[in-house]
Amino acid sequence: MSKIHPVIMCGGSGTRLWPKSRKSLPKPFLPLVGDTTLFEQTLARCADAEQFAAPIIVTGSAHLPHVEAQLGGASARIIVEPQAKNTAPAIALAAASLPDDAIMLVCPSDHHIADVAAFRAAAKAAAELARSDHMVAFGITPTHPETGYGYILRGDALPGGYAIERFVEKPDLERASQFLAHGGYSWNGGIFAFRAGAFMDELAAHRPAMAQAVRDAMAGASGQGARLHPLPEPFASIEGDSVDYAVMENTRRAAMVPVSMGWSDIGGWPALRDARERDERGNTVRGEVELVDCSGVLAETNGPRISAIGLTDVAIVVDGNEVLVTTMDGAQKVGKLTGASKQ
Amino acid sequence: MSKIHPVIMCGGSGTRLWPKSRKSLPKPFLPLVGDTTLFEQTLARCADAEQFAAPIIVTGSAHLPHVEAQLGGASARIIVEPQAKNTAPAIALAAASLPDDAIMLVCPSDHHIADVAAFRAAAKAAAELARSDHMVAFGITPTHPETGYGYILRGDALPGGYAIERFVEKPDLERASQFLAHGGYSWNGGIFAFRAGAFMDELAAHRPAMAQAVRDAMAGASGQGARLHPLPEPFASIEGDSVDYAVMENTRRAAMVPVSMGWSDIGGWPALRDARERDERGNTVRGEVELVDCSGVLAETNGPRISAIGLTDVAIVVDGNEVLVTTMDGAQKVGKLTGASKQ
Repeated sequence: MSKIHPVIMCGGSGTRLWPKSRKSLPKPFLPLVGDTTLFEQTLARCADAEQFAAPIIVTGSAHLPHVEAQLGGASARIIVEPQAKNTAPAIALAAASLPDDAIMLVCPSDHHIADVAAFRAAAKAAAELARSDHMVAFGITPTHPETGYGYILRGDALPGGYAIERFVEKPDLERASQFLAHGGYSWNGGIFAFRAGAFMDELAAHRPAMAQAVRDAMAGASGQGARLHPLPEPFASIEGDSVDYAVMENTRRAAMVPVSMGWSDIGGWPALRDARERDERGNTVRGEVELVDCSGVLAETNGPRISAIGLTDVAIVVDGNEVLVTTMDGAQKVGKLTGASKQ
Repeated sequence: MSKIHPVIMCGGSGTRLWPKSRKSLPKPFLPLVGDTTLFEQTLARCADAEQFAAPIIVTGSAHLPHVEAQLGGASARIIVEPQAKNTAPAIALAAASLPDDAIMLVCPSDHHIADVAAFRAAAKAAAELARSDHMVAFGITPTHPETGYGYILRGDALPGGYAIERFVEKPDLERASQFLAHGGYSWNGGIFAFRAGAFMDELAAHRPAMAQAVRDAMAGASGQGARLHPLPEPFASIEGDSVDYAVMENTRRAAMVPVSMGWSDIGGWPALRDARERDERGNTVRGEVELVDCSGVLAETNGPRISAIGLTDVAIVVDGNEVLVTTMDGAQKVGKLTGASKQ
């Protein structure tokens, strides 16, 4: 059985974990859960040489120094996106660089997955479906009525998974609760398996200009060590789009593998609190912190001591010249703070 | 009419406003409300040369540099307590340094008083009662059922005030509410007027050893410029006590003048928040602060920016190497924090 090619996506620069995550050192490259960074953990999940080939990293030039520093000595190919064009073109760059029959597993680099064995088992099942030219999404079994994720409704059974009946945009709380009760809905975690040639065929069918531009960019790519630099001009012409819109919602061969693996996109301070090890009152601290009568508190400092009294479900983050204090409910507005938006 | 001698008490070192107030720079010497310090404001309230003589400052050697720096060029006598023995001996040192017929007005240096005209009118009324050898307390009209203060129940009317019927220790909330409804109860704000000789007579009657030790300490006092250093040995023998216990609750001539003057002892972060100018959502900030969806928040920093979201009735204080975040209810425990207790 041929090995799976991990395609690790290091794009974007979310502001929802500001001030810890900053434009200069964004989320994938921070040790947010445990001692290693989310990017390092993503690499480690795909480091089993029996199952996986060396990874392909797709990233922009801004993140390149972090990628290379955290790769350490690991073998990898790096594709440097000429500019950010959302996920469909990024994945297409990797697909176009692989043989048509290669099986690729697209992994965001800024998620947390607690159960690596479950991830690898799902990767195996997804690869099987991809070999029969399905466009395969990981369907993550929901643990609560989350309104921050898109959902997948499963349809007919397939070997190791299901056809996808429908994609659903982020629901409100009432619909999310209905989805949870229904049982057939999963979270769309942004993890996909494709046969490289099949992906390019689907892209050509639904986004022909994008597919051609990616092929042109790769045809003119220049190499430098492990780095590949696609030609900027054709890539610049692309109208950016997500893989969900460009391919998954259009293909007739959308499939999913159900998986329960302690997954989180660490999409903000509440998610990070929940992903971390917590004490019996639900608190999690880093650095010099004293909590009195607190519960559900995340407190983290890289300098001054934090002392907190009487708080429930609050995040306190001290990072250099910034102090953030937010309720967990309020944390969705972190990106709109002056400090986060005017970096 | 002879002038009133202000006796300004600069003792103690509360921890309830940590980390702003620290042992090395305690509460009286900080600009907590407005641009000047509480000590400077205390001096300014008694700076009317028509009504007041130059003040006597009673303080310990630890606070002496702050006292002298903040006095500026103001004329004052300073009595340096050999050690802290609570308020009765401190007041007695000042009383023993004055002529018997001098009227003294004892003022803590760490309170906030919004209405200076009301303070001065009450001082005038209190001085009148003190001239007829009453031991006079300011009785502050309560604005809410506070459980952190002692109360005074007024009795028969006297010229410009009332006899004191009874002193009441800090009540619980139910009793405090009853006091407020009753109407005859005032807060004991620790501001007193005495004729110096009458105070020493009362002290000699109720705490004879203390009175003698103070006289001995003053008889052997050494001067140095405006500073007077009482003899340490006799003072060391004193069993410390408050003026309330030593004199006010024992004398038959206890009196009070009612006053409503926007008074606060700034006894913690909630009181400081309430004493400061607040915006329409009840927030008060100092330093670089951004508040989103906050109300009743005090946020103050002398360095890093504070960004806060979604908080109600919380204090956030960033001071050097310390960050405090506490609910207003929890603020009473600030003194027990490691940072506050192990300075």
